[in-house]
This record gives sequence, C-alpha cells and structure tokens, in this order.
Amino acid sequence: MVKIGILGVGTVGESVAKILEENGDIIEARAGKKIVAAKGVVRSLEKKRDVSIPLTTDPLEVINDPQIDIVVELMGGVEEPYALVKQALKNGKAVVTANKALLAYHRYELQELAGDIPFMYEASTAGGIPVIGALRTGLSANHIESIQGIMNGTCNYMLTKMINEGAQYDEILREAQKLGYAEADPTFDVGGFDAAHKLLILASIAYGLDAKPEDILIEGIENITQTDVAFAKEFGYEIKLLGIAKKVGEGVELRVHATMIPSESMIAKVDGVMNAVTVVGDRVGETMYYGPGAGGDATASAVIADIVDIVRGNQGPMLGYKKGLESGLKLLPKEQIVTQYYLRMDVSDKAGVLAMITSTLGEFGISIDSMLQKPVSDEGRAKLLFTTHKTQEAKMREAMQALEALDVVEGKIAMMRIEK
Amino acid sequence: MVKIGILGVGTVGESVAKILEENGDIIEARAGKKIVAAKGVVRSLEKKRDVSIPLTTDPLEVINDPQIDIVVELMGGVEEPYALVKQALKNGKAVVTANKALLAYHRYELQELAGDIPFMYEASTAGGIPVIGALRTGLSANHIESIQGIMNGTCNYMLTKMINEGAQYDEILREAQKLGYAEADPTFDVGGFDAAHKLLILASIAYGLDAKPEDILIEGIENITQTDVAFAKEFGYEIKLLGIAKKVGEGVELRVHATMIPSESMIAKVDGVMNAVTVVGDRVGETMYYGPGAGGDATASAVIADIVDIVRGNQGPMLGYKKGLESGLKLLPKEQIVTQYYLRMDVSDKAGVLAMITSTLGEFGISIDSMLQKPVSDEGRAKLLFTTHKTQEAKMREAMQALEALDVVEGKIAMMRIEK
Repeated sequence: MVKIGILGVGTVGESVAKILEENGDIIEARAGKKIVAAKGVVRSLEKKRDVSIPLTTDPLEVINDPQIDIVVELMGGVEEPYALVKQALKNGKAVVTANKALLAYHRYELQELAGDIPFMYEASTAGGIPVIGALRTGLSANHIESIQGIMNGTCNYMLTKMINEGAQYDEILREAQKLGYAEADPTFDVGGFDAAHKLLILASIAYGLDAKPEDILIEGIENITQTDVAFAKEFGYEIKLLGIAKKVGEGVELRVHATMIPSESMIAKVDGVMNAVTVVGDRVGETMYYGPGAGGDATASAVIADIVDIVRGNQGPMLGYKKGLESGLKLLPKEQIVTQYYLRMDVSDKAGVLAMITSTLGEFGISIDSMLQKPVSDEGRAKLLFTTHKTQEAKMREAMQALEALDVVEGKIAMMRIEK
Repeated sequence: MVKIGILGVGTVGESVAKILEENGDIIEARAGKKIVAAKGVVRSLEKKRDVSIPLTTDPLEVINDPQIDIVVELMGGVEEPYALVKQALKNGKAVVTANKALLAYHRYELQELAGDIPFMYEASTAGGIPVIGALRTGLSANHIESIQGIMNGTCNYMLTKMINEGAQYDEILREAQKLGYAEADPTFDVGGFDAAHKLLILASIAYGLDAKPEDILIEGIENITQTDVAFAKEFGYEIKLLGIAKKVGEGVELRVHATMIPSESMIAKVDGVMNAVTVVGDRVGETMYYGPGAGGDATASAVIADIVDIVRGNQGPMLGYKKGLESGLKLLPKEQIVTQYYLRMDVSDKAGVLAMITSTLGEFGISIDSMLQKPVSDEGRAKLLFTTHKTQEAKMREAMQALEALDVVEGKIAMMRIEK
C-alpha cells in the first residue's frame, strides 16, 4: 500500500482523495498497489470538507511522517510550498504538485534537490491534458520548433464569447466572474500571467531553458474590443491568448499575448474553457493535445496519473533531461522577437492621414499587409485597422511611439500579434 | 552507450537510424546515454538504402547479438515478427515495435512473455501521436468511458476530399494511390482493418480487454457516395472512419465504421491525412490527441520516444495494468450495439411508399429522427435518406432485410452509423 499526504485540501485535493477511493479498483490494477490518501493538511479545520481522510493544520505532520510515501502539494503560492516540498524531498518523499507558480520560479532548484527522487507535475500545465508526459517522453526524439498553447480557460472562454456572441469585454468578464470562471481580481488570468507560468514549464522541457516570468513578454486580453474581433473575422483569423515558445536560430522566443491565428488551424478551433497545446517537432511535425485545463476532477486526474507513474516505478527526468545540453539555447530578448502585427488606431478623417501613417511606418522599415478603414460615428474621425509584414518588436514599439506622437492619431494605439 | 538493432530497414527504419544520428545530441541529453543504431536487418542487400548502419539479411544476427540492447521491430506481418520478438525477449532484450498487426493478434502473449522486460509500441497506433503514453499513463486515474479515433490517414484524406471537393469515391481513391496515400490493394485501409488493429491496442489499455480483429465490427468507407456527403452537410454532420470503443454497463463496444459525427465536435475538424484520438475519462472528461498518423519520420519519432523511455529506465506496464482487474469488462456482441443509424435507399416514387417503409421500421421498434427525399433523374424513382433514433444493431439488420424485401425498395440499402 502506498500512502499519500495532501498539502492543501481544496477543490483539487478533495477530488484527489475522492477519486483514489472511488476509482480505487482500476487505479490499483494499473499501479500494482493500493494507493490511499492518508492525511490532508488544511488552513482551518472549521470548514466542512467533502472528504473522509484525517485532516491537520500542521504540514509537518505530513512532511515528517515516515508512513507517507508521496507528498501531493496543492496549496498554491510560491515560497511556502517551496519550503515544504524541499523538506519533503530531504525526507526522501516523492513529490507531486499542480502548482505552476512554484515551478515557474523554482523548478531548477527543485530538480537539483530532487535528484533521483521522483518529482512530478503533470497537473501544473493545461490541467487534465497529459501534455507534460507527451513533451517529456512522447516527443523526445525531436528538436522542438515551436509550442503554441491555449492554457488559460478563463481567457479562452471570454474570447470565444466575444467572438461568437459579439459581447463586450467588460460584460463577458462580469459573466465569467458570476460563473466562477474568473476571480474577483482577474488580473492573473486575463493579464496572461497564469499562461506564462505554464509556458515556462513547457519551455524547460522543450528547450532546457531557465527563465522566470519577469524575463518574458506577457500581455493579456484586456484591450480587445469588438472592432478587433470584426477585423479578425474579416481577414480569417481567430483571436486566442497564446503562450508561444519558438526556436529561432540559437534563441528561443517566449511570449504570452492575445494572438490572431488563421481560423483553419486546429488550435483556432478550440473554444470555451477548453485548453490545447500544439507542439511542432522537427521530425514528428505538428501534434496537438486538447482537453479541460481546469476543474477539480480533471486536475486531480493528472495528479493521480503522476502518483500511479511513481508507484509503477517510473519517473522523470523531472525537466526532461538526464544530462545537460552542451549547446544550450538562450532566451531571445523581447525586443528581438519578430512577428506580424495588427494595429488599431483612431485617426482624424482627413486627406493625407494615411500617407502620413504609412510613411511613418516606412521610416521604421515596416510595411502594411492588409488594411481596413472604418468611419466612426463621431464626425471627423476614423478607425484605421491594419496588419504588417514581419517586423521586429523593438521597431514596432518605436514606430507606435512615433505614430502616437502624430497630431492625426488620437490616443493610444492598440496592438495585437499575428501568428501563421 | 545503448545499441539498437532494427528488424526491417524500410521507410520507418531508415528514419529511426537517421534521427538517432542527426538528433543524437538532444536524444542523448534526454535519455542520459548515447543511443546508436548498430545493425539493421533487410530482406535483400541489393536495394540501395539511405543509411550508414551495417546491414544483414539474417535477423538472428540482431536477435542473438549480445551487444544489442534493444530490438526495434519494423518488419510488418504477424507470425514472422512474432517468432523473432519472442526470441529477442527470451534473450533478455527490450523490444520496441511499430507493428499494429502483431499486437492486434499477440499482445497478451507478448505481455506475458515480456514480464519485466520493456516492450513498447507507441508507434503502432496513430503514428507520431503519443496516444499510447497518454492512455497508459496520463489517464490512469480514469475509468475510460469512450474512445473515438481517426486512425487511418488514407480514409481521412479520401473523406475530406469527398466532402470538400465533391469528388466521387473512385476518383479520390485513384488520386490517393497516385500520391502514395493508398496501396494498390487499398482494402486494408479503406476496409477499416488497419484502424481495427489500432483500436484493439487502445481497448486493451483502456479496458484490459482481449479481442481479435475477427471478434469486432469492421466496416469501411467503400460505399459512401456524394448523396451521403450532401445529407451529412444538410444535417450538420461530418463523415469520418472512426474506431470506437465505448463502455456500456459491463460491456465494451468495439467497432470501426464510417460514422456521421456532429460538425462542431473537435474530432470532426480533423482533416486530410491527420489522425486524432478522443478519449473520454470519467474524471478528466474529454481529451484529444492530434497529429500525423503515418510517415517515416513521424513514426520514427514515436519509436525513438519508446527507446528513450527504456534507456531512462522506465517501462510499461506493457498493456497498462500491473495486475489483473477483478471485474473484467466483456466485449459486447456486435448485435447488441446500440446507436443511431443513417439509411439510404432507392424507392419507387409513388403514393404510400413512405408509409410502407416507416411501418416496416415500426415493426422492429425503429423510429425515424430526420428524413430527406430526393428525386432521381430516373423517372418514377426517388432516393430516401433518413436517420433513426437509437436502435440495436440486430434490429436494424433485420429491419434492413425486411425493407430490401419490399417491392418498392430497389437494390441494397446503404447504412452508416451516427455518433453524438
């Protein structure tokens, strides 16, 4: 019998305990041993919980219990769980976590510390979709060319609603909050930070690349309007919040932002709260992994998959590499990212404006790919929407500043990136 | 260093040898050891091959070579490779195979024989997509409710062409043959047998179910016409050749056939030669795995993934279970399968015909869900197309016989199943 201790018995922890019991027969057959949730750690014993396992408020009762074989960390946060799982590893216990923030900051220290002790985290990225396993094992023959992931269900739900129902951002956000898909403070989701944590985890496995959230380009979906949605439809794009990792020479681009992608691509077809990750390998080509990115049972499914794998005697290597790569890839500075851009700006509707704008862009070596001009009800103004050919991020930012300084451009320019 | 022997150096074998060399740096970093293709077995040394490894025509030079650690079987066929991999296992060598037919017939004997020796077969099902790993490890917490797979690229290519370009079956088949997507004798692909082999492999991992191709319902795409395609479009379906495994009580349906599925489902969006497998688990819900189902490099990617996993020290359990399930699920007899049906028939275009047909169906307890009648250029005849509510296969077959016996029904009735 294998005994599990659970740090943090919230929605996911309850599901883990329940599934281990309710699906105990098949889990035991697959793992070869009975797996039992033996103890749970909670902040307060007052709150009623839907589990029958013994609870305590002291994490050390799990971490230091010689009866516990595997510690499952589902607390959230960064430094507190970090201290606890470090202690668990020192005590020789295998660790399973669903905590993307912990890994976004401390995955390399944890790998070092774990050594030969299993440390698994399938549930940290894209919830119930076994994409960590796919990337770490299933695609190991490949140099990874790119990853594109819809890894935040809140954003995808909101964008799908905006596109399919024509609703405004604020309206949809309130609805998502009411449904429990978005937090009261939605920044972590809609600002792209949640997706960025997950992207960093995938990038480590794909490229052996160490980076922190602060190092990479992160933008959210907060500035998207129905004007952008209409433009995207007109030109055959869907709008998705993507986490993107892409190998460019010896560099790797890592970025999270709202993205226009061709409607016919598989990942563009992923709607609602679902997640999907597309991985392009140099040998296998494009593969995609699709499923629920959140939810108690779906996330618990991934947590238990890790537990079963550990009980079977399998393990990592945690971040996918048994030994270091000699020619390590480097994170490409944000400013050097090259992609296509979509811009939206309000301009004075008078002769010569378009020439002024295109010539300003031209000064930065930026050329226009497609364009749409829309009258604004407000007299004397127009909305100018266009996409550019491939341009370097630094150039685009300079060009946007120069455009915003023009008298004919009113207010801020909205920008989105395009991936084909 | 780990030495590989390859039985069968065709397209996939060449790719395996080449990728092990060309991606050797990253594969070694991931596996922890250098992996080398040390010997290849071919039928004839005359044929020029694009690999630099030593070749022989004697498989025993690989099987009995104490220097070889892992035997990779890529010969195809059933009994010849079976004898060889048995001997390899007896010699204590790990085995990796891409051979679905071998597994469709001998997977349980091989599991028994392998015991603790790794026996891996990621490439046998859906080519480069790591779906075996996902099912065996990533979804191990779940009772599997159903699997739907597009696992034959030839069929999916042909159906996509028929749907998107309105071409006739024969025309598309000739084109597919010219492009190398279909064999001169296409029966194995278009008749559903290839998909059936793969389905049986997935069903073992999902349900612990032993069955042979002969035991299950297998139909192909040969009878699909543009009339069916038009009907499907009208009623919001795509047509796909699906391998379906579905838990119904204590039984499991296993079947391969052309299927009408709602256009908005994710798997309906998989076009061309691509493969995809949707798995519904009782806890995770729906997940899907998408990618190339064939091709030298894509298949080799999966073969090498298995090799890397073995070198890392990981392994099965081969068919997903460390010990037997007490309450094993049973294969549901074909006749007991319950689903919705689509029927197409030519009828005399005269009063009372429809009443006669619906009342005949009524005698078998079958009711109509939707219907379309089309005039045929031929005077006095009409095409009658309809879908039924859920019906048992046995009843439907009896009803079809009864209908075909009616004077007003001309020739054979074409049938397709519907999955929602």
